[in-house]
Amino acid sequence: MSQGVRERRHGACEGASVRPGYDIAPWQLRWTGLAVDQLHRTESTFALANGHLGMRGSLDEGEPVGLPGTYLNGFYEEHALPYAEAGYGYPEAGQTVVNVTDGKVIRLLVEDEPLDMRYGQAHAHQRTLDFRSGLLTRETDWESPTGRRVRVRTRRLVSFTQRAVAAIRYEVEPVDGTVQLVVQSDLLANEPIESSTRDPRVAAALKSPLVGEFHSAEDHRAVLVHRTRESGLRMAAAMDHEIEVGDGLRTEIRAEADLARLTAAVDVAAGQTLVVTKFLGYGWSAQRSAPALRAQVEAALAGARQTSWAGLLAEQRAFLDDFWDVADVEIDGDDALQQAVRLALFHILQAGARGESRAIPGKGLTGPGYDGHAFWDTETFVLPVLTYTVPDAARDALGWRHSTLPKACERARVLGKRGAAFPWRSINGAECSAYWPAGTAAFHVSADIADATARYFAATGDAEFDRTQGTELLVETARLWASLGHHDPHDGFRIDGVTGPDEYTAVVDNNVYTNLMAQKNLTEAAAACERNPEVARRLAVTDEETASWLTAARETHVPYDDMLRVHPQSEGFTQHEEWDFANTPAEHYPLLLNYPYFDLYRKQVVKQADLVLALHLRGDAFTFADKVRDFAYYEARTVRDSSLSAATQAVIAAECGHLDLAYDYLVEAAMTDLHDLHDNVRNGLHMASLAGAWQAVVAGFGGMRDHGGELTFAPRLPPALHRVAFRMCFRGSRLQVVIEPGQATYRLVSGDPRTVSHHGEPLVIGPDAPVTRPVPPAPEHPTPTPPPGRAPRRHAKPV
Amino acid sequence: MSQGVRERRHGACEGASVRPGYDIAPWQLRWTGLAVDQLHRTESTFALANGHLGMRGSLDEGEPVGLPGTYLNGFYEEHALPYAEAGYGYPEAGQTVVNVTDGKVIRLLVEDEPLDMRYGQAHAHQRTLDFRSGLLTRETDWESPTGRRVRVRTRRLVSFTQRAVAAIRYEVEPVDGTVQLVVQSDLLANEPIESSTRDPRVAAALKSPLVGEFHSAEDHRAVLVHRTRESGLRMAAAMDHEIEVGDGLRTEIRAEADLARLTAAVDVAAGQTLVVTKFLGYGWSAQRSAPALRAQVEAALAGARQTSWAGLLAEQRAFLDDFWDVADVEIDGDDALQQAVRLALFHILQAGARGESRAIPGKGLTGPGYDGHAFWDTETFVLPVLTYTVPDAARDALGWRHSTLPKACERARVLGKRGAAFPWRSINGAECSAYWPAGTAAFHVSADIADATARYFAATGDAEFDRTQGTELLVETARLWASLGHHDPHDGFRIDGVTGPDEYTAVVDNNVYTNLMAQKNLTEAAAACERNPEVARRLAVTDEETASWLTAARETHVPYDDMLRVHPQSEGFTQHEEWDFANTPAEHYPLLLNYPYFDLYRKQVVKQADLVLALHLRGDAFTFADKVRDFAYYEARTVRDSSLSAATQAVIAAECGHLDLAYDYLVEAAMTDLHDLHDNVRNGLHMASLAGAWQAVVAGFGGMRDHGGELTFAPRLPPALHRVAFRMCFRGSRLQVVIEPGQATYRLVSGDPRTVSHHGEPLVIGPDAPVTRPVPPAPEHPTPTPPPGRAPRRHAKPV
Repeated sequence: MSQGVRERRHGACEGASVRPGYDIAPWQLRWTGLAVDQLHRTESTFALANGHLGMRGSLDEGEPVGLPGTYLNGFYEEHALPYAEAGYGYPEAGQTVVNVTDGKVIRLLVEDEPLDMRYGQAHAHQRTLDFRSGLLTRETDWESPTGRRVRVRTRRLVSFTQRAVAAIRYEVEPVDGTVQLVVQSDLLANEPIESSTRDPRVAAALKSPLVGEFHSAEDHRAVLVHRTRESGLRMAAAMDHEIEVGDGLRTEIRAEADLARLTAAVDVAAGQTLVVTKFLGYGWSAQRSAPALRAQVEAALAGARQTSWAGLLAEQRAFLDDFWDVADVEIDGDDALQQAVRLALFHILQAGARGESRAIPGKGLTGPGYDGHAFWDTETFVLPVLTYTVPDAARDALGWRHSTLPKACERARVLGKRGAAFPWRSINGAECSAYWPAGTAAFHVSADIADATARYFAATGDAEFDRTQGTELLVETARLWASLGHHDPHDGFRIDGVTGPDEYTAVVDNNVYTNLMAQKNLTEAAAACERNPEVARRLAVTDEETASWLTAARETHVPYDDMLRVHPQSEGFTQHEEWDFANTPAEHYPLLLNYPYFDLYRKQVVKQADLVLALHLRGDAFTFADKVRDFAYYEARTVRDSSLSAATQAVIAAECGHLDLAYDYLVEAAMTDLHDLHDNVRNGLHMASLAGAWQAVVAGFGGMRDHGGELTFAPRLPPALHRVAFRMCFRGSRLQVVIEPGQATYRLVSGDPRTVSHHGEPLVIGPDAPVTRPVPPAPEHPTPTPPPGRAPRRHAKPV
Repeated sequence: MSQGVRERRHGACEGASVRPGYDIAPWQLRWTGLAVDQLHRTESTFALANGHLGMRGSLDEGEPVGLPGTYLNGFYEEHALPYAEAGYGYPEAGQTVVNVTDGKVIRLLVEDEPLDMRYGQAHAHQRTLDFRSGLLTRETDWESPTGRRVRVRTRRLVSFTQRAVAAIRYEVEPVDGTVQLVVQSDLLANEPIESSTRDPRVAAALKSPLVGEFHSAEDHRAVLVHRTRESGLRMAAAMDHEIEVGDGLRTEIRAEADLARLTAAVDVAAGQTLVVTKFLGYGWSAQRSAPALRAQVEAALAGARQTSWAGLLAEQRAFLDDFWDVADVEIDGDDALQQAVRLALFHILQAGARGESRAIPGKGLTGPGYDGHAFWDTETFVLPVLTYTVPDAARDALGWRHSTLPKACERARVLGKRGAAFPWRSINGAECSAYWPAGTAAFHVSADIADATARYFAATGDAEFDRTQGTELLVETARLWASLGHHDPHDGFRIDGVTGPDEYTAVVDNNVYTNLMAQKNLTEAAAACERNPEVARRLAVTDEETASWLTAARETHVPYDDMLRVHPQSEGFTQHEEWDFANTPAEHYPLLLNYPYFDLYRKQVVKQADLVLALHLRGDAFTFADKVRDFAYYEARTVRDSSLSAATQAVIAAECGHLDLAYDYLVEAAMTDLHDLHDNVRNGLHMASLAGAWQAVVAGFGGMRDHGGELTFAPRLPPALHRVAFRMCFRGSRLQVVIEPGQATYRLVSGDPRTVSHHGEPLVIGPDAPVTRPVPPAPEHPTPTPPPGRAPRRHAKPV
């Protein structure tokens, strides 16, 4: 058993090697020691997923546990949403991700003593997530209370190549003489979980969400089929096993409604190893019958066994090698950041790789946070990463949105609008937000989807997508804006009464972000109709309609404060009272838990980048001087009570030349989950923040922009780092950009030459040799200051 | 049994005398015929109350019934408020008025056949509410299914002079020979009621809200004591009886937890009459024990019996004679309107006369609508009526607000503000609104209370109130505004993010109504501190603080649209999209049931007078030209989906010279409940609309204003009427104003001479002789038009 090289340790107490925590390594995340009270965190960071199936990083033996969780993307239970005062258009049904049948559980009895890390003595214990193999490895050297010692090594994978399949290799080696080992390998439905919800109806819905429909067990194989009570979805889980050991193995298998168990008992001598390989197959459907689902998971198992454990490992490695070839980010000068950025990319891949016709939830498949819902974060933060690294995954995620267009159009109709109003939060495409300022007014979601659609098309030239899905997404979202806005004699095309990205304002007029994103949406829709006239005809788009879009786009009102020379985030924002930061104690953050909405909404306090996000995504609509003034103005008023902010602040800080500040924000974005900065990582990882780490590197220090579908760079290295390199693909070509002191180098990794620009200078990246260009010095301005106590953080608050 | 003179009948089908409905009479409301399906309406209009105790106008025999209801002001049950997404500062507990022990029930058996209007044959049936005697009389000539005929006359009163007491005189006379009569007189707790709530928790709380604590019965007397399950309030009801009849009476009385019943059986000959007088005593307390409450209601009964039925009648008449002497309104030229306005005044008196330390709920004590909550309507619409007619009742209602100051100050603190934030809706003073844009942002409630406080003081000169309650109310509400607003370099003292009166906008900046009412609040508070320096010292008001109030008042920002030359209701309102009235079908009103909040809020559609209410209450802050333009602008955009609108529109229409329109709005306000224009009178009467009828007459056609505490008139008679006369009191003097074609006459009814003004000309109303002055012609402008289909209504939609 290799301990590997002990590098520096994350955390406030560096060098305190007795204290459990993450070790720093470039290609791995490793936790040495046990720390039962930290299990909920590591279960999230060690989660394995492929976008279809996700498993939290629980210990094999099921207990101790923070929060058990196995998730199938799109599989949810429904529950009534209660309102003390209901209103028109309030959604009546909520959706909540369900912890499905747990196939991870493998228990070990050593001479009748259950392996339980809370008892006996752990001579060694570590868990390692490897970003290149895609394996979660656990190594334990344990002495039972009665003095018998075993070494246990388990490796777990959720296959990227076989989306319905997971596999576990479980190895036990007695250390001090022959012992009797009993292994129990389970499929366990309706695991007891502690719900954090305060709503008794949701808690009831989730208490025992699965109703057994079928179970069978035979030989080493078992299947359980369940359905949900309310949402009417059906799922199946199956397991099969291969057992390698000397003589004397006795096995038994049985199944009941909520439990299938293989029991294997054998005497194993010291130096010998009991090896159990467990193959898991999962599937769910809203339509297929129990026998059909059973057949489906048994087929998945058969495929996995045919591939074999070694084959699954090899496929996983090959898949990841290809991913890192197109997506790797190298950070020289900050090892912890290097590790965090690769972890981020690994989890983004896990969230999106094989989602296919389903959403990418805000927490991926790493935990039950946000009820398993997907938000606009996916399009705005996650999809840019996928678009430039695994574009097929971006296409699939947009395909999910396209598949929910009927629901979005119906929602728009209920709200009295035309086109498509995509939900604030959802699993199946229907709005689930019980808070109407978000659930009915945050229309920017639709522009964000349009933006991701246009970006994907520009970055891939995927004409098939453009024709079959993209144009329709652009047209229906454009129609929403055309019916939401109005031409006013005072000041042009206004969009009133909407909620922008910042959750500390709501239902405002002319939110600059929303207006500019809508403007882009309208012009992109007109362009798509021009590219695809037959699609436009099918959607009954007339020339008058596209003309009206272009008129609205041209006349879009963008408010500006002439006195302060900045853009108000929305109409009137800069006339609002300033937040009293001086009298806001640190423990009053996040503010929304300690101040009423009305007071947050009416003051100049910003939860997350909003105008600053417009400076990024619609940077083409601002002068550089605007950006510098606007960024400084909002920097002083943005508290980052959201994980959706630091990355965007990093990007614009870098553009404005505040490189140290940009670096600090990059670090915060990258460390959000590793250091549990928002104290909620137990419920899952923040996909948007993980994606934000990539954004902060690529769009921040790389200065990458894609306005109008052109790929441009403006790289600059922050003083704290020696070198930053990143890879990406664009229209099928893989590129690498290396940023070093004073210069940047562009290299074609594979594919056709591409024309890009470097700080405004066009250049061709071709096959011959890398192109190196000098980097102009950063413009100098005073570095703006965040609100008191709200500077970027690398670590959680000291404990 | 007198049928009275059959006058014209209310309703769309005049002359259709077979159809049950209200008869028109100047001093009575009478319903001839039964119409079981209309009982819920007449139970509300025939409700009797004195501000402390209220009884819906149900039939004596309990069934058929629309919605039974007996209410004790301030007696409520508590229930959890559910939230799918909770937020900081959301109230956790709701309060709901409870249907307490029903003492109205008197059943009659005629030869074993129960008197039930649904069976047998009614030869005559009518109910009459008399505004001068205060009695609800019911006269029935009924033939049982077995052919026995009786005349029943019952008279019911809720005493204005003995607030805990109600009494019923029940008379039965056989028509055709001796019959056996059995009378059952009940106290009935936990009557089954159909709840209209969709919230199962509220329904559960109200299903059987009373827990029996004590019961006793002896002789003709019984007592039941109950408490609520959650709110911990205790109530007692007691009954006693006097029975007048010939020989052979047998009585029996018994009691159990939820029922006490006196049974009286006797043979009565034709021409003889069985007379049962039932005295009822009620009481409740949050503190007193069951024995103490029992003693309290028994004492009330003893007092009532000592007074006797005849004595109660005489006291009631004297009380009402005095009321009409100070409050009567005469309308010549529209008999239905005359009746409606007197009914309105009668119900306002019933709601407020003896509320004493309790609120005046939005529905008075006539039904369970709005959960029995009090709103700002009370201060803005009801208290002006009481201030100028029964000022002690206005003082008591403000005394309730004063008693809840600790809750209002705590609420302000929770919301991060200083001073007092009074609740949007409440029974006990704690906020009960589950909708935060109302429950936390409708701060104008506090200014409305301050306005009512200042008005009461100006109209009475009640220095004791000013010192003990008024100044504190003004100071704490002024402190709220000082902490809510801020001085902005752009445009002065702004009050952002508040909800004004119009419920089709919310959380806006610089709502003109709110800003102007706050401005007045600030100056009134400063003046009160100057009058009462010792109170100011006790409240720690410094000179700097009053100076800051006056500065804020002076610099209060009032937005104005220079292009359209009107005041926007709030910042940006006139730039919003117009509502598409042309495509809004009639059945889509009220709009809030058919359109989402976000869309109502973002468009130029107004539920109820808001800017127009400012034109009334802060008319001193507008030029006449402003008023004319503003009124026309908002007239075209106000849909009156609220009963709080027509009266204010009448007042400003009259001021602007649109006398026909003003008349139409007066009629709508006065008929709102009689004709059930909002289709919800089953849940109780709209006190604000009833009060609005008075406002429309006195402030509308009388042109009465009280800016700065001065009493001014600008009377004008609408063409439809021959003469309008109204009475009021001011600083102890009773005045009468008579408006006739071309002239107005001012008369001192009693008290000292008073200086007022007539169309700007000062005049003294003295004891010598009435003063008559010519009325200048109304200014002429085009009459503005309400939105299509939203013209004032006299009747409910045709059925």
